Amino acid sequence: MALLDENRLFSPDPVLRGLSRTLYDSVRDLPIISPHGHTDPQWFAENAAFPDPARLFVTPDHYVFRMLHSQGVPLEAMGVPRADGGETEQDPRTIWRLFASGYHLFRGTPTRLWVDHALQEVFGVTERLSPETADSIYDRIDDCLKQDAFRPRALFERFNIEAISTTESAIDDLKWHRMIRDSGWSGKVITAYRPDAVVDPEFQGFAANVEKIGEMAGEDATTWQGYLAAHRNRRAYFKEFGATSSDHGHPTARTEDLPQDVAASLFDKALRGACTEDEADAFRGHMLTEMARMSLDDGLVLQIHPGSARNHSDPIMARFGRDKGYDIPTRTDYVHALRPLLNAVGERSDLTIILFTLDETSYARELAPLAGVYPALKLGPPWWFHDSYEGMMRFREMATETAGFYNTVGFNDDTRAFCSIPARHDVARRVDCAFLANLIATGRLAEDEAFEVAHDLAYRLAKQAYRL
Amino acid sequence: MALLDENRLFSPDPVLRGLSRTLYDSVRDLPIISPHGHTDPQWFAENAAFPDPARLFVTPDHYVFRMLHSQGVPLEAMGVPRADGGETEQDPRTIWRLFASGYHLFRGTPTRLWVDHALQEVFGVTERLSPETADSIYDRIDDCLKQDAFRPRALFERFNIEAISTTESAIDDLKWHRMIRDSGWSGKVITAYRPDAVVDPEFQGFAANVEKIGEMAGEDATTWQGYLAAHRNRRAYFKEFGATSSDHGHPTARTEDLPQDVAASLFDKALRGACTEDEADAFRGHMLTEMARMSLDDGLVLQIHPGSARNHSDPIMARFGRDKGYDIPTRTDYVHALRPLLNAVGERSDLTIILFTLDETSYARELAPLAGVYPALKLGPPWWFHDSYEGMMRFREMATETAGFYNTVGFNDDTRAFCSIPARHDVARRVDCAFLANLIATGRLAEDEAFEVAHDLAYRLAKQAYRL
Amino acid sequence: MALLDENRLFSPDPVLRGLSRTLYDSVRDLPIISPHGHTDPQWFAENAAFPDPARLFVTPDHYVFRMLHSQGVPLEAMGVPRADGGETEQDPRTIWRLFASGYHLFRGTPTRLWVDHALQEVFGVTERLSPETADSIYDRIDDCLKQDAFRPRALFERFNIEAISTTESAIDDLKWHRMIRDSGWSGKVITAYRPDAVVDPEFQGFAANVEKIGEMAGEDATTWQGYLAAHRNRRAYFKEFGATSSDHGHPTARTEDLPQDVAASLFDKALRGACTEDEADAFRGHMLTEMARMSLDDGLVLQIHPGSARNHSDPIMARFGRDKGYDIPTRTDYVHALRPLLNAVGERSDLTIILFTLDETSYARELAPLAGVYPALKLGPPWWFHDSYEGMMRFREMATETAGFYNTVGFNDDTRAFCSIPARHDVARRVDCAFLANLIATGRLAEDEAFEVAHDLAYRLAKQAYRL
Repeated sequence: MALLDENRLFSPDPVLRGLSRTLYDSVRDLPIISPHGHTDPQWFAENAAFPDPARLFVTPDHYVFRMLHSQGVPLEAMGVPRADGGETEQDPRTIWRLFASGYHLFRGTPTRLWVDHALQEVFGVTERLSPETADSIYDRIDDCLKQDAFRPRALFERFNIEAISTTESAIDDLKWHRMIRDSGWSGKVITAYRPDAVVDPEFQGFAANVEKIGEMAGEDATTWQGYLAAHRNRRAYFKEFGATSSDHGHPTARTEDLPQDVAASLFDKALRGACTEDEADAFRGHMLTEMARMSLDDGLVLQIHPGSARNHSDPIMARFGRDKGYDIPTRTDYVHALRPLLNAVGERSDLTIILFTLDETSYARELAPLAGVYPALKLGPPWWFHDSYEGMMRFREMATETAGFYNTVGFNDDTRAFCSIPARHDVARRVDCAFLANLIATGRLAEDEAFEVAHDLAYRLAKQAYRL
Repeated sequence: MALLDENRLFSPDPVLRGLSRTLYDSVRDLPIISPHGHTDPQWFAENAAFPDPARLFVTPDHYVFRMLHSQGVPLEAMGVPRADGGETEQDPRTIWRLFASGYHLFRGTPTRLWVDHALQEVFGVTERLSPETADSIYDRIDDCLKQDAFRPRALFERFNIEAISTTESAIDDLKWHRMIRDSGWSGKVITAYRPDAVVDPEFQGFAANVEKIGEMAGEDATTWQGYLAAHRNRRAYFKEFGATSSDHGHPTARTEDLPQDVAASLFDKALRGACTEDEADAFRGHMLTEMARMSLDDGLVLQIHPGSARNHSDPIMARFGRDKGYDIPTRTDYVHALRPLLNAVGERSDLTIILFTLDETSYARELAPLAGVYPALKLGPPWWFHDSYEGMMRFREMATETAGFYNTVGFNDDTRAFCSIPARHDVARRVDCAFLANLIATGRLAEDEAFEVAHDLAYRLAKQAYRL
Repeated sequence: MALLDENRLFSPDPVLRGLSRTLYDSVRDLPIISPHGHTDPQWFAENAAFPDPARLFVTPDHYVFRMLHSQGVPLEAMGVPRADGGETEQDPRTIWRLFASGYHLFRGTPTRLWVDHALQEVFGVTERLSPETADSIYDRIDDCLKQDAFRPRALFERFNIEAISTTESAIDDLKWHRMIRDSGWSGKVITAYRPDAVVDPEFQGFAANVEKIGEMAGEDATTWQGYLAAHRNRRAYFKEFGATSSDHGHPTARTEDLPQDVAASLFDKALRGACTEDEADAFRGHMLTEMARMSLDDGLVLQIHPGSARNHSDPIMARFGRDKGYDIPTRTDYVHALRPLLNAVGERSDLTIILFTLDETSYARELAPLAGVYPALKLGPPWWFHDSYEGMMRFREMATETAGFYNTVGFNDDTRAFCSIPARHDVARRVDCAFLANLIATGRLAEDEAFEVAHDLAYRLAKQAYRL
């Protein structure tokens, strides 16, 4: 018995299935390029065993615990840590059984596919997770985790990861990355420059963070020029640890290209905590343009991840803090929002700006037309809630006709769920091959070209776009 | 000859068709749960014969008369009553012939499927409606309607309806429901609490309506506390007639959770007709939260149906009044609009809030992510204009990956076209089975699980969610 | 070898393919009705040979040069003329080689299909365009262009065009159309009335344009009444050259129905260049209603093309001017925006208003519900960026269930790329047949009805709607 269908995500039509299969077989074993994600560099630095099945699959995975919670399971019961230090379930087997008893909730979701893939391919499980099988599967995983072959570096190698990027705050000391580098291990784990804490006036502790970045950079970051210099310094430092990109998660896609004196005076207000909401948004928007200008100098790829209404529930935020599954996509305008940035640097073909969206309505209407003309712009793959079979298919169907394949940048998994990485790349490769099979079968693409595109989407485009 | 294809709505691919068929055969004969609709309780109370084919199929069905009208047929010619008492066509055969001569306009629409289903399955018609067949089909239906087997209660039983909910205004006396109950008939026809007339300051006669609800409830409803007490009293009264839900049709999804003194003073302004548009919207929004709090006490399920721009045409409104096919869906924001309500009660798993939308762009972007985390939230089925093959398929494709199946609530027909009820549930069952067949064939769901889900979607989920 | 698959755009499923093919064979050779487009009347007036392959395929086609530019090719290198008179590439073979070397960028795009179709069907090319074949294909096309059989009128006849409409400014003298008429040639090339230059206060040279229309019409167009009279006069003049429609390209879908004195005073402000942005938008919106009222008198069909954010890049606008691929679709509201117009004339079934959109989210939510009830409204085919396989399929899937087929108006190619016209109509016919095949195979439409609809969509509806 197997949890996974060998031909999953391919159409049952024999023509389409045959084409999909042949294309997929040509890319399935390519190394994984993971240029954007949230794995923990400490794993690779220390190479300690993962503690237990629950803390590997349930507690850290917001896709998992949000679904269980939606049906009434308290976050505490899944061991999600309380911000207020309150009690939570500590027994991993109890948490695992809860997961097993709610496993039917994931029917038809990508989580089901990712978890089944990890269970079968990583841990050799062949029975469906259920209340009846919960314990035996728990035991099997737990046994594995005690073996060296299941430590982070071993899995990294087994997953055939050619390069992976984590994401660190601009004021992170990168000690884990240093430890990885100093260890002499050959795995390519790089960082990415995420400056939200020091470019968002509404970020908790903004002024202190700015002071900190100044200290780290040896600049007086409380002046506008010193602040910019500190960014440049830190970007260079991140580049020492392999960084090839910066990453920006703003509530909107707003950009600004303000005169320097206006920007400087907004920065002063921000430091004094005196910005209005609109001014904070304008400052964040202006900093995207500043970052793009720095990219022209230092070559970092600029990633923009806008449009998440974060921490939607006040009671959950108060009790558990950030990142608890309560970040909800919102309608996002790009056409007007990106104009200042694009007027400033959009025509530069030596710059790469990678756009993501949580608003699928923008694929065909805004993002593909923009990426299909501006030399600097490329489209990131489907993101968060949309990094699924249907979501990826909609992306190709809506973006390809106007942006083509070559204004997209392949796949990235964007995950902190380590064991799901091969699963996610496998899903992306299968969906792309299924999409290409349909193009061939409907006379929209020649077969020899489809093989080239399949390879590009699975490997080359990510490598090129992220300069890896 | 038959009007209906036995395998309609199933893919022609043999694998998909076979799976769809097998799944469908397992649910096709399940009883109908119709937890939200607009049938007339007078039908079941009096059990009088339906008058004639035109007044059964054309005059009351806005899907039918709006399409004919869009091609230039005056509403008068279809017997739609004039608000100003002007003349309209009275001869049902003339109206029927008009319908027949425009029947090609419905090609590719759900109305065509619903009407064909009713003609064949209810009245045994096997010829396509057309100018040539108009009279013979008219005669056949007319003959049927004179028979007892075609009276409302007989059809109710023949349709295998286990439970149906009508919708009544909070200030309705429920006399037809009382008559049904007193008749001793076993058919389960329940009501639902619809308070628009007394929670919407912009509703015609709002102040008088508030006075009336006070009288009916024995409360001084002109005070804020008396007004809330009157609601509680009426909800209890509705529960005596089987109500398990309240229903709310607001122009936007806005909710508020105002301090009680602010709400009270808005209520005063509303009574005096002094609310601005924004204040009226805020008051409606606040009342959703009040209703949710009452639900925590009395267990009624809260249904929200936002986003219709009603009575779009002034000339039609002046000549024919409300509900004449001129209610147009609008873009609707949920993420920000629902926050006050969800902050107040969203974490309660003993509460059920069922959300509907006329804006399909919100399925994947907003509604599935919200319902996929808040314990209180569930997603209603595709509504109005979207309760069709394509609309239902889009709903499953866009909502399932993030909300799963178990944060949805099965199907409801939402109709006043009685004969279309079996047709609509049949369409929903077929589409869900076709969707599940595709999940199986693409390795996204095991076959045994799909059978369970098919049963859930066709029957169990509606029964559970609506507490029937 | 062939560039085109005989069964392109049909599903590989044998049932669907068979049905699609049979339907398509019944419409493939119908004459082309092209009621809206941007071909140059000078071509048909002078009937001169097209200059060379680059100036036929690359330099004038924004779909082509925007894609190459998005990957870093300067517009200058493709011979796109500079607004500032700067140098651009003049050698057509060099430009053609650039096109050939970037031809892989068009994989999966409609441009690829259009160009391949023109290469094979018009010029007999059977090899794929690539750096290796660039020169031989160039030579072949260049040879053809020197032959009489490849002059505009000969191609027009070979393309089987029954009627084509160009679009001219209200202040165009129509000299090419006069020349065509005077030539005695039998080809039906008509004009359409495009008054943007004289109804948009923000149009460059608005006041001078108004003065000019007055002169041309023999009216004092600087008064409100004279201005309206000038429009009536010019519309009559355009009708002499076959015009059956007017066309309006506004940034939003806003309409107004202002009192005449308010409109007159806005017009005065507009002439003085004193309108605010909002007033300019209101004036444009009001003029749509005035145009509709004129249509009630003179029978011109009113086309509305809203929602393009034009000339998005300031540097490109400064260097190259308008229409350089930098017009980006935006979110567009119709429900509220069209109300004033529809309240004024929407119930008139002797008027035809054809709506287009660049915002696909409005198909199912707004446009189909509006066109499915207002007698005056019809939906134009998928427009700009959406006039592709996926775009057309989405349009049918999202609009048909609520608007039916008969509130749509067939296809129009909207192009200035002459050789792509047969390709575009062929794509539309194939997609519609594929859509209809699916309706038949899923029991949603009878086969005999589908043949009638296929004919309507390919030919009759455009002819009727545009009164050709």
